[in-house]
Parts: sequence; structure tokens; C-alpha cells
Amino acid sequence: MDYLSTTCAELYKALEKKEELPKKVFLQGWVKTNRDSGSIGFVEFNDGSHFKNVQLVYNKECVNYDLLSSLRTGAAISIKGDLKLTPENRQPFEIDVKECVLDGDVDDDYPLQKKRHSFEFLREIAHIRPRANTFQAVFRVRNVLTMAVHNFFQEHGFIYVHTPLITTNDGEGAGNVFDVVTHDTKDPNSFYGRKVNLTVTGQLHVEPFALSFRNVYTFGPAFRAEHSNTVRHASEFWMIEPEMAFTDLNGNMDIIEECVKYCIKEVIAKCPCEMEFFNSMIDKTLLERLNHVVNSKFERMKYEKGIEILQKAVQNGHVFENNNIEFGMDLQSEHERYLTEEVVKGPLFLTDYPKEIKAFYMRLNDDGKTVAACDLLVPAVGELVGGSQREERYDLLKAKMEELGNAKELDWYLDTRRFGGCKHSGFGIGFDRLLMYVTGMNNIRDVQPYPRTSNSIKY
Amino acid sequence: MDYLSTTCAELYKALEKKEELPKKVFLQGWVKTNRDSGSIGFVEFNDGSHFKNVQLVYNKECVNYDLLSSLRTGAAISIKGDLKLTPENRQPFEIDVKECVLDGDVDDDYPLQKKRHSFEFLREIAHIRPRANTFQAVFRVRNVLTMAVHNFFQEHGFIYVHTPLITTNDGEGAGNVFDVVTHDTKDPNSFYGRKVNLTVTGQLHVEPFALSFRNVYTFGPAFRAEHSNTVRHASEFWMIEPEMAFTDLNGNMDIIEECVKYCIKEVIAKCPCEMEFFNSMIDKTLLERLNHVVNSKFERMKYEKGIEILQKAVQNGHVFENNNIEFGMDLQSEHERYLTEEVVKGPLFLTDYPKEIKAFYMRLNDDGKTVAACDLLVPAVGELVGGSQREERYDLLKAKMEELGNAKELDWYLDTRRFGGCKHSGFGIGFDRLLMYVTGMNNIRDVQPYPRTSNSIKY
Repeated sequence: MDYLSTTCAELYKALEKKEELPKKVFLQGWVKTNRDSGSIGFVEFNDGSHFKNVQLVYNKECVNYDLLSSLRTGAAISIKGDLKLTPENRQPFEIDVKECVLDGDVDDDYPLQKKRHSFEFLREIAHIRPRANTFQAVFRVRNVLTMAVHNFFQEHGFIYVHTPLITTNDGEGAGNVFDVVTHDTKDPNSFYGRKVNLTVTGQLHVEPFALSFRNVYTFGPAFRAEHSNTVRHASEFWMIEPEMAFTDLNGNMDIIEECVKYCIKEVIAKCPCEMEFFNSMIDKTLLERLNHVVNSKFERMKYEKGIEILQKAVQNGHVFENNNIEFGMDLQSEHERYLTEEVVKGPLFLTDYPKEIKAFYMRLNDDGKTVAACDLLVPAVGELVGGSQREERYDLLKAKMEELGNAKELDWYLDTRRFGGCKHSGFGIGFDRLLMYVTGMNNIRDVQPYPRTSNSIKY
Repeated sequence: MDYLSTTCAELYKALEKKEELPKKVFLQGWVKTNRDSGSIGFVEFNDGSHFKNVQLVYNKECVNYDLLSSLRTGAAISIKGDLKLTPENRQPFEIDVKECVLDGDVDDDYPLQKKRHSFEFLREIAHIRPRANTFQAVFRVRNVLTMAVHNFFQEHGFIYVHTPLITTNDGEGAGNVFDVVTHDTKDPNSFYGRKVNLTVTGQLHVEPFALSFRNVYTFGPAFRAEHSNTVRHASEFWMIEPEMAFTDLNGNMDIIEECVKYCIKEVIAKCPCEMEFFNSMIDKTLLERLNHVVNSKFERMKYEKGIEILQKAVQNGHVFENNNIEFGMDLQSEHERYLTEEVVKGPLFLTDYPKEIKAFYMRLNDDGKTVAACDLLVPAVGELVGGSQREERYDLLKAKMEELGNAKELDWYLDTRRFGGCKHSGFGIGFDRLLMYVTGMNNIRDVQPYPRTSNSIKY
């Protein structure tokens, strides 16, 4: 009888579906731990296809006993063995090893030993940490969350657009851009004949596609050269930026709410082991918090009302680090969290912000002082999504852009308002922050494969 | 009776499924053409959700007759109307307009008039061309092809990894990199404390993930600062780079073949209107060529054998631009196309290239002079995919890298060979070239939303 080449994932999936498991299996993967009690030994084995390990058992009768007994954490092996159901044990089945081949040994200085390592230490070995439990879970959820995003928009008929990363414009005009130069000349104008930088947003590039395909989205890298050394800032990160023609601010919020709930539900449904791990090892309130979001109707409140509530809270003795609450201020995380955690006790769209603190492309409201913006605030984090209805009126947008000084550089963007432009809206989700939110991971450096933050780069 | 808010896509889908169509519809989109014969008028209407237009009909009895009659190409409109099945006509149904609102008018200088425009002209208006038929088709197929790639790898249990775009290394060492500097200092070391550039490949970063998750892939932007002004070169493009542990060159080729066939089949199945358009307007042999690939068993031939065949062809009087065929040469497109078009008459893997003309990370064969590389050559194009088994032997790889001078910079990459490294393989597909291949479009500038080529950037 032949040994069936299979994977941990296939075995666990068959078990879950109550299908019959193969009797003789061929597996290839890595040793997580190995303990030999003299006559019998146990290898915790994982091939990367499933979060859970598979237990290998070996004994003196195995032809490769000496090899098995000497296997070190991290070694790559191929094994043939007999699968035995062990429903009475902690693991539902184990493999009785008959043959073992050492495909790749491990040097003595292998940094990922059995003991627990700090996240700080693991960041220094970004090429090895994907093998650690936490990062097996993080990057597996990252994959599932990525596909949840794609599937949500695809199911809703959105067209995915690859907006460019090298661009002549500085999107929102904040000035924190990386310039791109050629290696040989160092001249920023030499390659394209114009100064270029890395994009900070795909929105301006994707809007013309919304005015052609109606519902579109970008999902790709964006860059900010900010020296913000916080747990939430990275200089390179992935952004989801949908854009919808014939959609106003309310329609925009409807889609944001549906999208966030869909993504959370997908991850909970498709990553049960990983989410259980995060809930027990990283944040014990995680699943409760996420389930609460999924089952909440997201509240909607105007910024002005939010300011009034915060002012009343201060009058009633609540102390913020910044207690000067006034219309026109940019809310800090503590204010946002107060509103979402203490006031509405759930997800909250704050809308209609003062025009001075929002981007030039947001639609001016009839009051002449606020714009049709919406930020989604969620408990434990604060802002998770930012969106707006875009200014579709040519004259108003042109005046605003001339004031800002980008009307000439972005003449093509302005043009879209003269050529069958219409009401449209969109939003942006920082993908890495969304991943932090659904995993409970506290530092953006621990959800990116190779984190990019200021003063730190090795890979 | 209310008007049902719907889209062109929903109507065509219902028709295809032989479901009952709504009687009264509300549609929002753009005018493609408008002709008014005096008492009755016809608008070709498209909302971007489907490649096919919907015909709107209006007459003097409509309250908005004057407005409808004056609608210009490109205008954004909302209409309410009665849907009538017209199976005897060219279009299967039409909408008898009852009400119309002009959401966005069009200025006189709207560049996309009814006449046919050259691709060169359309490249100059990248923000408007997505509304042209060809680009409606191109970017719709781009979306479907992207998802085909993701779905193929997801169905096969691969984990998607976002490898970084800003990096310290120059992947394959060709030197054609863009440097990344901060706007304020212009100092390439200032932000990260080290010189950084835009990535040319995600492979080196994704290999450690294959040695953790077994099967992984990247799919994201890559950059080359080459001044190659050809129809196939762009300085920014998307790359698909899968990597598989415990897989040799033959397993690699199996997956490449399966992947290419899957992607082509998906596009043909999901974009029938678009593919029919390409087949009639762009390349009349397109569907025949693609169907031939899908139904072929891809041949496999060693480079050495290919050289012998080419030498014989020259002896027999075949004239190449470069007729100096010898072992060690880098084959040009004319040679590749001769082998795939004239010799095997179908897709061909050419394998085992001389080590001197391939990248440092490819596995040295036992002959000591060739490496375990495979290029997939296809008729009409030449090289479509490049892959290899990676050198997993530490000492051999280290010697090679020391010779090349990147052993110190890439010490972490070398490390993966000491820490449970094993046999592994991978490949790279230029996504934009794959899209050219499946659409028949001849110029990479016409398959990218905002093409990035040397000496040219506007957006």
C-alpha cells in the first residue's frame, strides 16, 4: 500500500468534514519541537498549511530512530508513517513514523528556540519569525483578510484598478512624500522628465475609473515619509480605496458598514484556530469585541454634535489630556474613543467635519463651513475608516484647488468634473490597521511581513 | 408601481439566466451616443457595470424630451423608464424613457467623441480613456485576470504575502533600480538610516515565507529603471511570484502550466463579450491561439537541445537577425518564437540554461555548467513565465554570492539555507504581459491604468 502525499491542512479538513482519513501518509514540513523519552519520541510537526501542528510518534523499531531522535527545532523533514485516530487524546490523530529523511538541518545558532520570544526580538528576525506561532496566525489571517476584501468588492460588482505608485502628485498635499530618483543620475527629473514621488493615496487616480465603471476600488501599497515612531504608523502600508459614482455620503456609509462587517465575519469563519489563539494569547476581549461590531447598527452623528457631547463631558468633570474642546479642532484618539466607547458604546460614524481640517476634494455642505466627510470610529482603536462625498462641482473644486496651489498640476483631475462628472463618494481603509483591529495585535510592525518604519530597515 | 434601481449588468445577467426582467427601471450612467430623428430618439447608454450598452428610446411625449434630445456624448444621466423586450432587434431589450435628469454635463472640448481615436491619442488622456470601448474591455479583463490569479493560488492553499516595495537590496543585481529619498533632505540614508531603492522582485523576501508556509505567492508592483522604449517594457508593473517548498523544477513546471491554463480559461469564461471584442477588433487569431494553449500539453526541452535545433535551422537556410547560435548565448525573442511556433507548435518550457546567463539563486545542475531554470515560451509572444529551482545548498550559494558581492548585504537570505532550508522552487509572471497575451493588446501602455514608461509621466 502506497503512502499518500498530503498536508496537515488536508488531514484537518477531512477530519472536520468527517471524511475517512488516509491510513498511510507522506508529509513534508518542519520540526517545531522534539522530545525523546528513550524508547518513544514525539515530534510536533507543521508544514505551514494549517495553524495546528500534527504529532509524529517514533520508537526504537523505526529504521531512522537515531535520526528522528536527533532532530532539532526548525529542521525540514519528509516522513512516511501510519495515521492513527486518537480521539481520546488532545490531538485527534497522530502519525506513527516509519521512515524519515532530513531535508534541511538547522545550525546551532537557530534563533527561534522553543522558549517564548519577545515581539521586539522577533522583529529583528523577520525572515524567521513567520515560523513562530503568533506570526503563523498573523500572516494566515492577513491572507484571509486580503481575500475577504477582494471578495466583498467583487461580489458587489466593483472593478479592481491598479493605480500607479510612482506619481507626479502629492495626493492630499501633506508634503510627507518619498521622492523617486534614478540610481545613476540622482536627478529626480531624469527618468520621466518630471519630478516624481511615491503615492500617498490612489484616490485621485481611481476617481476617473469610478466615472467610467461606476464602482471601483484600489488595493495596493501607499507610502508616507512621516517620522512618527508610534505603534500605528508605518512608512509603507496597504490601502483599500473604493470609489462609487452616483453615491452620496449616506450610501458611502452603508457600504463601509457592510464591508467592515463582511471582513470581520469572513475572518472569524475562516480562521477559527487563529482567532482562538489571538483571543487567548493576545487580547481576551477580541472575539467579544468583534462579534459586538458585527451585530451592531453603526451609529451616525455629526461632528458638531460630537463636540457638544465632549464639551458636556468636560463640564461634568471628565478629564481628557486635551480638555480644550471646540468646534474646528481635530479630534484626538482619546476624544474619538470616548464617543465610541462611552457614548454610543459601539461603532460610530462621525460626519460633516469643519472644512479646514479635511482634504480639498471633499464636498462642501450647504452650511458653507462643513464638508460631507465620514470617519468610522470603533471601540478600542478610534478611527478605522475615513471617507467622503467628493466635490463634484467644478467651480467650487477649482477655487479650492487654486487656493491650495494644485489646480494646474492636477488639471486632469479637475477635468473629470467637466466631462460627465457626477455625485460620487469613496473611502479609505488602512489595511494593516484593519488587520491589527481583527487580530488584536498592538503594533503595526507585527502585522507586516517586513515592516517599514523610520530609522529601521534591514531587509 | 415603483421604478427598480438596477444596473446594466443586473439586467444582462437576468436575461442570461432567463429570469424575468423588471418592467420599470431606474438607471444611472453615461451617454455613449445620442441621435434624435425629430420625433423619436435613441441613446446608447452605459453605466460601466457591463461591457454591452443599453438602448434608451425617447419621444416627444416624454416630459424631458428637450433635455434628452440635447444630451451629449459623455454626459452623466439618471433615467426612469419602461423596459421592453425586443428579441426581434439587435439589442434584446430597450428602455422607453419616462423621466431623465442630467447629473453631469459635458464641456465642448470633451476629447472622447464618437469617432475612432488612435491608441497614441488615448494614452494622452488616461483619465478619460477608460470610457472608450477598448479600455472598458481591457480594464474589465484586467480585473477578472487579477482575481483568476488570486483564486488559482487560494484554491491551491497558497498564502498571499505582501512583500515590501522599499528595500535595501537590488534583487537580481542588474542595477536598474530607482532610489528612494526623502523630499526634504534628498539624502538616501536619511529616513531609514540606509540607502534604499524600489524593489525589482519580491522573490528574495518571499522565500523565507515558503520555508514557513510551504506554498506562498506575492502579487504586487515591481520597478525597473530601464530606458527600454519598447512595447513590452514599463518601469512600473505588477508581478506574480509564487514560491513552493519541497518542490523541484518539474513540480514547478506542473504548477506554471496549470496556472496559465486556469487564468486563460477563467477570462474566456467570465468575459465573453470582451473577448469577442478583442477577437474581432484587435487580433482575429486571439481565441484560436488561447484555446490552443488551453488544450495543449506544454512541451519541455533542454536549452542545449534548443540550441542544436536552432543551429540545424541555420544550416538548413533559416535566417535569424542573429544567426550566431551557440551554447551560452541569451536567446532572443526570434529564437524563442522559432522554437515555440515552428518546432513544437505550442507552449514550450525551455530548461537548464547555462549558469552564466541566469540569476545567482538558481540551483546548479550536476553537470556544473547549467542551472535548474525553466522559461515558458508561447507562440506569438516568446517568454511568458520564468522560473527555477532555487539553490538550497548553503556552501554553493554562499560561494556564488561572494563572487557576486551580495553575500553580506543578503546575509539573512543565506541564513535561510542554514535553518531548515529545503528544496524549493518558484517562478515569476509579469502580470501586464500576461494581460497583453490574453487580450491581444500589443502595447503595455494600453493595458496599464496609468502607464509608467521612461520620459513620460503626466498623472
